[in-house]
Amino acid sequence: MEYFGGIEAGGTKFVCMVANGPQDILAETRFPTTTPQETIGRAIEFFRQHQRLKAMGVACFGPVDLNPASPTYGFITTTPKPGWPNTDVAGMLRAALDVPVAFDTDVNGAALAEYTWGAAQGCDPALYLTIGTGIGGGCLINGLPMHGLVHPEMGHIRLAHDWQADPYGGFCPYHGDCFEGLAAGPAMKLRWGQPAETLPADHPGWELEAHYIALALSDLVCTLSPKRIVLGGGVFEHPGLIERVRVRVQELLNGYVQSPVILKHIDEYIVRPGLGNRAGVLGAIALALNLKF
Amino acid sequence: MEYFGGIEAGGTKFVCMVANGPQDILAETRFPTTTPQETIGRAIEFFRQHQRLKAMGVACFGPVDLNPASPTYGFITTTPKPGWPNTDVAGMLRAALDVPVAFDTDVNGAALAEYTWGAAQGCDPALYLTIGTGIGGGCLINGLPMHGLVHPEMGHIRLAHDWQADPYGGFCPYHGDCFEGLAAGPAMKLRWGQPAETLPADHPGWELEAHYIALALSDLVCTLSPKRIVLGGGVFEHPGLIERVRVRVQELLNGYVQSPVILKHIDEYIVRPGLGNRAGVLGAIALALNLKF
Repeated sequence: MEYFGGIEAGGTKFVCMVANGPQDILAETRFPTTTPQETIGRAIEFFRQHQRLKAMGVACFGPVDLNPASPTYGFITTTPKPGWPNTDVAGMLRAALDVPVAFDTDVNGAALAEYTWGAAQGCDPALYLTIGTGIGGGCLINGLPMHGLVHPEMGHIRLAHDWQADPYGGFCPYHGDCFEGLAAGPAMKLRWGQPAETLPADHPGWELEAHYIALALSDLVCTLSPKRIVLGGGVFEHPGLIERVRVRVQELLNGYVQSPVILKHIDEYIVRPGLGNRAGVLGAIALALNLKF
Repeated sequence: MEYFGGIEAGGTKFVCMVANGPQDILAETRFPTTTPQETIGRAIEFFRQHQRLKAMGVACFGPVDLNPASPTYGFITTTPKPGWPNTDVAGMLRAALDVPVAFDTDVNGAALAEYTWGAAQGCDPALYLTIGTGIGGGCLINGLPMHGLVHPEMGHIRLAHDWQADPYGGFCPYHGDCFEGLAAGPAMKLRWGQPAETLPADHPGWELEAHYIALALSDLVCTLSPKRIVLGGGVFEHPGLIERVRVRVQELLNGYVQSPVILKHIDEYIVRPGLGNRAGVLGAIALALNLKF
């Protein structure tokens, strides 16, 4: 039996897996992200313990270079994470393991995995959005992950920001009050003076968070017209948040997008990942499976 | 020689063409949009004068139903235009002319035409945005026009709106101050009390218009990562507007999207249509050419 290797390369941790899909996982490990040499070295060591792999996929934090014609294809490019700018992630793995390596963003991987096995099966376009320390979005569209000039940076769209209702200016060093600047974990902590997970259930911060997420989703609905939206990230562990987001998306679209799933079945339209916290690493496996041999 | 038929079905006028592309146009006509019966009837009459067509394409104003599995596929659905809601545009043509009919939004057609023959050749994803009486966007991505749950409605994304700088609340009946509500032709007229084309070159309305268009474009760059953006619509006849938009997009992205075409060659990135005012009807021809036989 042939197996595929997958790495969810995150800024905080790496998750490595040998599998053919969620129902056929041979091995899995996770370890903290330290230096590129050490972290990618541990991944290589893990995969060497297993039988020869048919191919590997990497679903990577970014920004990354996804242009196959570029000399820095497969690199992490300009990340603020110390030690990691200009790291040839795909090249190091290919050289050490001698297998084809598919490479994409973490969120494109997660979108592909949720489309292939998870909560967005049969839904093209499928949008995956994650909200945590940062905010990122990936999309499966016309059968493939969405790339382009670079890759989507959905966390950096500008939202309508009512400065009177919310005087907090956002923490994004590039844009201040973009989506990430207003709604990622650090924004909640800086605005309210305490981490999101310690805010009580009736704290107004949750309504505001739902509002910002819904504003972004209504823009993404108008731009991408996804058939399903999968929301990943720790913030949705908060009871009631996704429900508030759904109601607010309906309010913001205000009946304009005439689709029964938005007007009547929004709980089937805006959903949590079907693959839980394995969406990322299974995305890497899916990227490897999608390679043409 | 076999030819294809194309209709740019607009809310104001219909443009009909028999062609194989921009270099091989056999016939072309345009007439005002009146009732569906009369307008589609005139189109049918025009195409009947010409030799038998291999296929037809319709690039249509909307909202439209693009789901081939739907009983109302090929219909204009909920348009506010009197007489036109629930009109089976594709079906009427197919019945009268007995040819395969490809059907898409006007802006997806234009995106496809600009990608095939115009200013976005070789650029996938290619974004086409038009700003006139309304605002609409289409996109060619992974080789195909972008559809989804319905179709993109890029004119209805919410922009950051500084109410102190611009107290005008927007004219969109659904969303008030969405992109279309703030920046389409009627918004300029209502805000300043005179039509856009009569505003002097140094009127502050032009800087504000550039700002709103650039806000939308920077969001679309972060969401779709297009390789080129083609801007259609009468408003860009105004000298200097597209140049202001380019500068403002760079300011808003603020160096975050690390691509030479954004940082250094934005005049090659944000461009006017290569096909001029024929992008729409040639889009219809391109849709017909793309049909699988």
